[in-house]
Amino acid sequence: MSLPSHVRLVEVGPRDGLQNEAQPISVADKVNLVDALTAAGLSYIEVGSFVSPKWVPQMAGSAEVFAQIQRKVGVKYGALAPNLRGFEDAMAAGVKEVAVFAAASEAFSQRNINCSINESLERFAPIMAAAKQHGVTVRGYVSCVLGCPYEGTVAPEQVAAVARELYAMGCYEVSLGDTIGTGTAGATRRLFEVVGKDVPRDKLAGHFHDTYGQAIANIYASLLEGIQVFDSSIAGLGGCPYAKGASGNVATEDVLYLLDGLGIKTGVDLEQLILAGQQISGVLGRPTGSRVVKARTAR
Amino acid sequence: MSLPSHVRLVEVGPRDGLQNEAQPISVADKVNLVDALTAAGLSYIEVGSFVSPKWVPQMAGSAEVFAQIQRKVGVKYGALAPNLRGFEDAMAAGVKEVAVFAAASEAFSQRNINCSINESLERFAPIMAAAKQHGVTVRGYVSCVLGCPYEGTVAPEQVAAVARELYAMGCYEVSLGDTIGTGTAGATRRLFEVVGKDVPRDKLAGHFHDTYGQAIANIYASLLEGIQVFDSSIAGLGGCPYAKGASGNVATEDVLYLLDGLGIKTGVDLEQLILAGQQISGVLGRPTGSRVVKARTAR
Repeated sequence: MSLPSHVRLVEVGPRDGLQNEAQPISVADKVNLVDALTAAGLSYIEVGSFVSPKWVPQMAGSAEVFAQIQRKVGVKYGALAPNLRGFEDAMAAGVKEVAVFAAASEAFSQRNINCSINESLERFAPIMAAAKQHGVTVRGYVSCVLGCPYEGTVAPEQVAAVARELYAMGCYEVSLGDTIGTGTAGATRRLFEVVGKDVPRDKLAGHFHDTYGQAIANIYASLLEGIQVFDSSIAGLGGCPYAKGASGNVATEDVLYLLDGLGIKTGVDLEQLILAGQQISGVLGRPTGSRVVKARTAR
Repeated sequence: MSLPSHVRLVEVGPRDGLQNEAQPISVADKVNLVDALTAAGLSYIEVGSFVSPKWVPQMAGSAEVFAQIQRKVGVKYGALAPNLRGFEDAMAAGVKEVAVFAAASEAFSQRNINCSINESLERFAPIMAAAKQHGVTVRGYVSCVLGCPYEGTVAPEQVAAVARELYAMGCYEVSLGDTIGTGTAGATRRLFEVVGKDVPRDKLAGHFHDTYGQAIANIYASLLEGIQVFDSSIAGLGGCPYAKGASGNVATEDVLYLLDGLGIKTGVDLEQLILAGQQISGVLGRPTGSRVVKARTAR
């Protein structure tokens, strides 16, 4: 048993989380959320998405959010840039770190971003070139790494092929997402064993959804495979877009509770994090998705 | 990474689960539940408790339940017998397997069963002797193995001392319970490392509560330590008696989902199990505590 001594948490709540909440929230509330997450000690916060508000109305105002947040030195504030237009908007907003998004499943790619996996990777080429010019770092996401809502099983070799491409194109890190949350610990370990042959493990991140209650176990399994970066969403924001009413992104509070329990350093303070989660849950008027916070606030 | 090929699930829903539900349910509904669990393929079902209905009204009628269930050959139907009086009532009801219950925390023992740990162990002596006479097997529980609601931290050596006593007294298996659900995967591994020095690992079981969302990870950690028996509660029955509104016993459906995913055999059928859970959730008029069932029934 060998666990990493440090883990970096990538907070995706303000983007991946709020994007999937039915209720759009104001720029001021988003800014408050990002500032509270900064105060909690997170070193990576995905702030918004530069995509047409026609498609994703929840992400409208991302430029304003970037303009108003209190940036702390050493913290990365990222944005999703699905195409060159979005990338240029992100640059205009002063973004220094962008993320691109591909799928490991052909059917999911077609239905989610309206093109094949290869076409999506081709679209990233001009973004990667522009990012290099601007001195901007790019993080890659691969979705459906442990199952697809349309195709079912997804082979780890297929995930490896997409992750390898993103890494070869210049993504400094590739985050592997169990988009529908159906993966279990054994499949998680095999995933990193296989993908780890093509992309160094210290360039891989795990992005788990708690839909089937397996996320914390999958993170533990990933830690045992030497993975040191995990995406999570404050208060479990976002739910599961493929099963409304079920959980989606694992709650950052719950991941931190695990890591604190394992004695793994993150630089994040659980009490401050819980405050950030309570603040946004109040804005949304819905209960937290964090099991830890539910337990602590139960009567 | 070496995982067991088989796991035995000990279904505690009808006893440990229903005992902690606010609403008492009828003998007929309890019988239906046990029969549905038998049909799902479980090989151990904790059916009831022979304790004064003055103290635990939810367990009234345990003798009638034992009289009416359809017993399947090869399945153990257990009952909690906290004292000799309860043991004798259990024998009169035709029970062939009983369980006794001790705590790893002195404060919990005092508050929960009104005596010291040593006194509780002394009280079991006549039960163990009577059980031997009757040819009845006895399972031991130790609670608060990863934390106590009154004392906080509990040392694994303290758990080992109690587990060793129960094993020496004749319990064929000792189940270690994280009663408040605060344990994480590292503490779980250390627990079995330490207790495993005093009691053979194939005589130990894990009993995890999902209050902090850690149960599935803790079970995975236990599997990696060679533990092959786990207690769980259909539909997560019972909630957490120490934090009302929070989760308690991990849901059997969620544990089975993990084990199925790991390719570990249990003899239990997930679809039948889900039916059993839906049936009792309907009786109680409350949503299931199983994440897997929530995900599958979300719209």
